[in-house]
Amino acid sequence: MAVYTKVNDQTLNAFLATYDVGEATSFKGIAEGVENSNYLLETTKSRFILTLYEKRANPEDLPYFLNMMEHLAGGGIPSPLPIHDKSGKALQTLAGRPACLISFLSGVSVHHPSENQCAALGAMLADMHKVGQSFDESRPNDLSLEGWKELATKTDARADEVKQGLAAEIRAELAALEAAWPTGLPSGTIHADLFPDNVLFTGDTITGVIDFYFGCTDMLAYDIAVCINSWCFDEDHQFLPGHAKRLIEMYDAHRSLTPGEIQALPLLCRGAALRFLLTRLYDWLNPVEGAVVNPKNPLDYLKRLKFHQQIGDAAQYVV
Amino acid sequence: MAVYTKVNDQTLNAFLATYDVGEATSFKGIAEGVENSNYLLETTKSRFILTLYEKRANPEDLPYFLNMMEHLAGGGIPSPLPIHDKSGKALQTLAGRPACLISFLSGVSVHHPSENQCAALGAMLADMHKVGQSFDESRPNDLSLEGWKELATKTDARADEVKQGLAAEIRAELAALEAAWPTGLPSGTIHADLFPDNVLFTGDTITGVIDFYFGCTDMLAYDIAVCINSWCFDEDHQFLPGHAKRLIEMYDAHRSLTPGEIQALPLLCRGAALRFLLTRLYDWLNPVEGAVVNPKNPLDYLKRLKFHQQIGDAAQYVV
Repeated sequence: MAVYTKVNDQTLNAFLATYDVGEATSFKGIAEGVENSNYLLETTKSRFILTLYEKRANPEDLPYFLNMMEHLAGGGIPSPLPIHDKSGKALQTLAGRPACLISFLSGVSVHHPSENQCAALGAMLADMHKVGQSFDESRPNDLSLEGWKELATKTDARADEVKQGLAAEIRAELAALEAAWPTGLPSGTIHADLFPDNVLFTGDTITGVIDFYFGCTDMLAYDIAVCINSWCFDEDHQFLPGHAKRLIEMYDAHRSLTPGEIQALPLLCRGAALRFLLTRLYDWLNPVEGAVVNPKNPLDYLKRLKFHQQIGDAAQYVV
Repeated sequence: MAVYTKVNDQTLNAFLATYDVGEATSFKGIAEGVENSNYLLETTKSRFILTLYEKRANPEDLPYFLNMMEHLAGGGIPSPLPIHDKSGKALQTLAGRPACLISFLSGVSVHHPSENQCAALGAMLADMHKVGQSFDESRPNDLSLEGWKELATKTDARADEVKQGLAAEIRAELAALEAAWPTGLPSGTIHADLFPDNVLFTGDTITGVIDFYFGCTDMLAYDIAVCINSWCFDEDHQFLPGHAKRLIEMYDAHRSLTPGEIQALPLLCRGAALRFLLTRLYDWLNPVEGAVVNPKNPLDYLKRLKFHQQIGDAAQYVV
């Protein structure tokens, strides 16, 4: 949540001269995203976000993410639009970092989404998946089974520092998921990290979807599972069935779920819970020196995992 | 350079309901100021900065700072204007912190000010001092002689870790300044920290002056001395006489300097250089755990101090 790379007015003005976006009238570093440096830029013509990709971003993946955003924005999804310079390039180098100027989206992210906001999310997610079907690039999901195994191995020795027995619980869950992980479900371009932080609202209307830097090709229903985990539990980690019902129903109204997807939902939800449990556990055990952001509690997602484990039938999500 | 206190949408909306400023359409934490949490807020009516004052700010001083900004803005200085809620209050409590909503100012701060920008600064500073004359509150300058003595004492034992002989240089300079520090010069409300970071430009026009949290009552010419130190040296810490000349001349054109002020300028410049040398030295020796901002090199101001020590006559600043 900080600006890591400083961009001064001279560097900025030289950069903007290669675009047809007008001249800077305001330029402020914003505390958005944990991994990159972001500036809110206002010019004589419009408003933009300038992102400098810091070392945790793999530069080889950046064209995929930018092309994905551009494809989705072109299909009517309120995703940021990467801006091209006068020579047609979107991905640049600025202050020694890969960088991109993207369109600004208004709206405010919600801390406690309402049922209506979950309904809007479901509709938008289904639309995003439909538009994504014509995106012809692909990227494997680094944080699916193989990635979880790697994180489980890296955290195994110390997981019990966080909670007695956690390492064994993770191993058992990973074995169960590996044995039963669905195949053959409709697949395509997914966001894979669609937390409330990454959706901007004006009232109950979605005005922005941001942070596509986990975007990848995977089962579409996995995105729903991520949303159920992150949108449909309250602060005490209690499941909110009304929220899940509206989310799933509106998704289904915009893109019909197949019987296989519905059946797989509890398992996909377990997988998504394990994914955030593992990444949070890793970050908890390996805090970044000097980081301003406090690592998030991994056990929030152990609670969700246990909830999903006792779901026998997807219908229980929409009671 | 970070947001320390998070404000979620519910807290924000409840807060905004006490104002007549419209509803939030965008809300982003900005990486501005080292000591407070700042958000850029856009509403259906206008744009604002929401500041939450963190623990380094003395809550007792906040009414002074806000009243100073309001007085200056009312007198035509492009200072942020504290916004009053429906009951007339500007200083609030939000998320357990003192907080204030202030008007947004456009413009971009310049890294290497030009001579024309120094001229604009001189004119604005003189106007600010004139408008400040009718501000009827006062606050002592914590970072004048007495404050420097305190910092010198606190850093004395370890100053030589930064540079051999530094502690003795500081002691000698402090003694010299104490013996000769001017009295009886025109005094009033000063900014006291008017670095290029704190001035927003559109081209060569000043559109904003920010960060009044060192504002106090002291000799007006001390503000000029701070500006000479922070605006009139290049990256290699070489004095830029053309910059100083335009700054001083334009100040004088808007508010005539007295002979005593002109004569005292070299000494005031030494004092201002010592002030930033000492605060930077203290921060260098006492880094804040987990801070994202790297402490600034105190020796940049030792170089400036040595430059001012060899100035015999203020006329040398404007050759």
